[in-house]
Amino acid sequence: MSKPKGFEKPVGVRDYVPYAVDKLRAIERNVLDCMSRWGYRQIMTPTLEFYETVGVASSTSDQKLFKLLNHRGTTLVLRSDMTAPIARVVSSLLKEESLPIRLSYHANVFRAFEEEAGREAEFFQTGVELVGDDSPEADAEVVALAIASLKAAGVTSFKIAMGHVGFLNGLFEEVLPGRGGDQQALKKHLLDRDHVGFRKAISELSISAGQREELEGILRLRGDKEICDQASVLGRHPQAQASIDHLCKVWEVLEAYGVSEHVLIDLTMIGDFSYYTGMTFEGYASELGFPVCSGGRYDNLLRQFGRDVPATGFALKTNRILDGVKGMAQEEQLPVLIRYTAAGRKEGLARAAELRAQGRAVVTLLIEEESGSRQESEERYEKIETFH
Amino acid sequence: MSKPKGFEKPVGVRDYVPYAVDKLRAIERNVLDCMSRWGYRQIMTPTLEFYETVGVASSTSDQKLFKLLNHRGTTLVLRSDMTAPIARVVSSLLKEESLPIRLSYHANVFRAFEEEAGREAEFFQTGVELVGDDSPEADAEVVALAIASLKAAGVTSFKIAMGHVGFLNGLFEEVLPGRGGDQQALKKHLLDRDHVGFRKAISELSISAGQREELEGILRLRGDKEICDQASVLGRHPQAQASIDHLCKVWEVLEAYGVSEHVLIDLTMIGDFSYYTGMTFEGYASELGFPVCSGGRYDNLLRQFGRDVPATGFALKTNRILDGVKGMAQEEQLPVLIRYTAAGRKEGLARAAELRAQGRAVVTLLIEEESGSRQESEERYEKIETFH
Repeated sequence: MSKPKGFEKPVGVRDYVPYAVDKLRAIERNVLDCMSRWGYRQIMTPTLEFYETVGVASSTSDQKLFKLLNHRGTTLVLRSDMTAPIARVVSSLLKEESLPIRLSYHANVFRAFEEEAGREAEFFQTGVELVGDDSPEADAEVVALAIASLKAAGVTSFKIAMGHVGFLNGLFEEVLPGRGGDQQALKKHLLDRDHVGFRKAISELSISAGQREELEGILRLRGDKEICDQASVLGRHPQAQASIDHLCKVWEVLEAYGVSEHVLIDLTMIGDFSYYTGMTFEGYASELGFPVCSGGRYDNLLRQFGRDVPATGFALKTNRILDGVKGMAQEEQLPVLIRYTAAGRKEGLARAAELRAQGRAVVTLLIEEESGSRQESEERYEKIETFH
Repeated sequence: MSKPKGFEKPVGVRDYVPYAVDKLRAIERNVLDCMSRWGYRQIMTPTLEFYETVGVASSTSDQKLFKLLNHRGTTLVLRSDMTAPIARVVSSLLKEESLPIRLSYHANVFRAFEEEAGREAEFFQTGVELVGDDSPEADAEVVALAIASLKAAGVTSFKIAMGHVGFLNGLFEEVLPGRGGDQQALKKHLLDRDHVGFRKAISELSISAGQREELEGILRLRGDKEICDQASVLGRHPQAQASIDHLCKVWEVLEAYGVSEHVLIDLTMIGDFSYYTGMTFEGYASELGFPVCSGGRYDNLLRQFGRDVPATGFALKTNRILDGVKGMAQEEQLPVLIRYTAAGRKEGLARAAELRAQGRAVVTLLIEEESGSRQESEERYEKIETFH
């Protein structure tokens, strides 16, 4: 390919000009402040991790990891999420800290998408991990905090769809025992939200009419708490039943939080991360056409890093919120322009210092005695003061 | 080499636990706020850039750039500074914006050091670029802002050493005309601050005793404004003389800012970035053994990106300040623990919401009716409230 031109940047990465930075920073600050009020303390981890540990443990498929070699020939990755790095830190630096551990983050993560796809190769996530608590109370806490975080980020109208990976695993194992390939194919259709493909795949399976009806019934399992009762009829398998019982308890706690109006149960949902083991959820904003957050329980991940404890968490898709939400940044106050001649320099700079101490933004400019030698467009400033 | 263990991270990168994050975030916020009051607007650029453009234009030597290939086989780099990326943005996204342009940033940058060296492969810089103003006033502004920024970062006692790349270039060309190799060797000793090596190299040159004395005299050119007068005797070469005149003017403006007590002139200083073309400076904190900031003028860099305008700027070495400065983070207020039984859940969560709305950090915990089923260490909380 031709050599890149000087002004070009790689496909899939962004520059944020000052207006966008102000908006992104406002979302970052408001969300982190919210998480802090829920007892989550902020953590930062490196951009580079070992491929063999964090890279492999992450939910990102191998070909979407950005890989590079260090001087020793060890393969490194640019982190693709913060869940695996935090699992590493909880198992090392924080291994003496007693459970539960509540951590928050705002970080850029990387995905090596095909350039043609037009997707982002670097983007921000703002999220939390709640480590060491496997109760429905903990799952409800992260869902309720996701709701509070979306509000803090300026997302006004949204729904959280909540499911459980154990329900479909149990139901499929009951209807299609031992038929892993068929189960995977059906799950793939649900992950892609391809209901037509799901129905077609079912119609092609060699199963009884009753079983077919049972599987098709999954698609109707979206709604409020009543869905749990309907699902109980379907899910006779112990794992499916346990999953439904767990979701009912989570729902009960969300009612106590007073946020169940934002939540719906969606038993067709498959979390998009391979490490999820229990409740999963996604947030959809009515003004935006794609998820604005996702989360779930991952009780087996920390074991890979040497600390076998359960965990649950979520991440806001901060760039999507940045692009979709209006008017988070404060109205930009224009700076004051202090113009001075050589003779008025000391007085002018003293005035600039005085205004800055008051918190005002001030730009200074040396002008010739006759003035006007260097033009400054007046509309860039709130006011102009001149010192001779 | 052996496979990395689960808890390991690559050499040269850091985890920041909550206390360190609080401190780093306080420095970041205070310094960016300071820069904002000087009229600098914050910008963000991607971690990944093209090697052929930003990578080559950066001041980082080729073997210290982290390189990787994208799907198309184009070489990318992890940014090694922010000056080259900002030059790209000023020449592209901001190319219609009128000059001067004032931009600030806080960003992580990368250096592929040999792992054995114990140096950081990823670290933070917080800095500014002032684009489109080649006056001594502009150079003085960035030095004065560096001083204000160091104070905002909590560095209490420091000196800024200020030099000019044109002085040594002119002087060497006068004493050693056309002897580029000898000039480079001498500059390398000065860059390494190896005065013994510098004297030895001079003693081995085939030059007159007077020339030798002249070159050795360079080492004494460190001090306050009087150094400019002494240097004028040495620097008869037009470039050397113009450099001294420029520094005198910058000093004059710094006196008007009332900050010259923090500044010394050091004509032995060679900026450590290859793109510097004029005034350069470094900041030294008395409590720390290494530079805490560096900056200078780079009038030829933006031309490489298609916008031929002068520029000057600096960056704080934020990690060094983080490690060296004490007590920037606010005293951490412990959270309140709200414990509740199933019966007290709604009331307990309502109380948590109330305290959070007041800005307090609150952790919640479901307890069994008899209490005490799950222990929480009391010293982790400011107070505990229980709801039955």
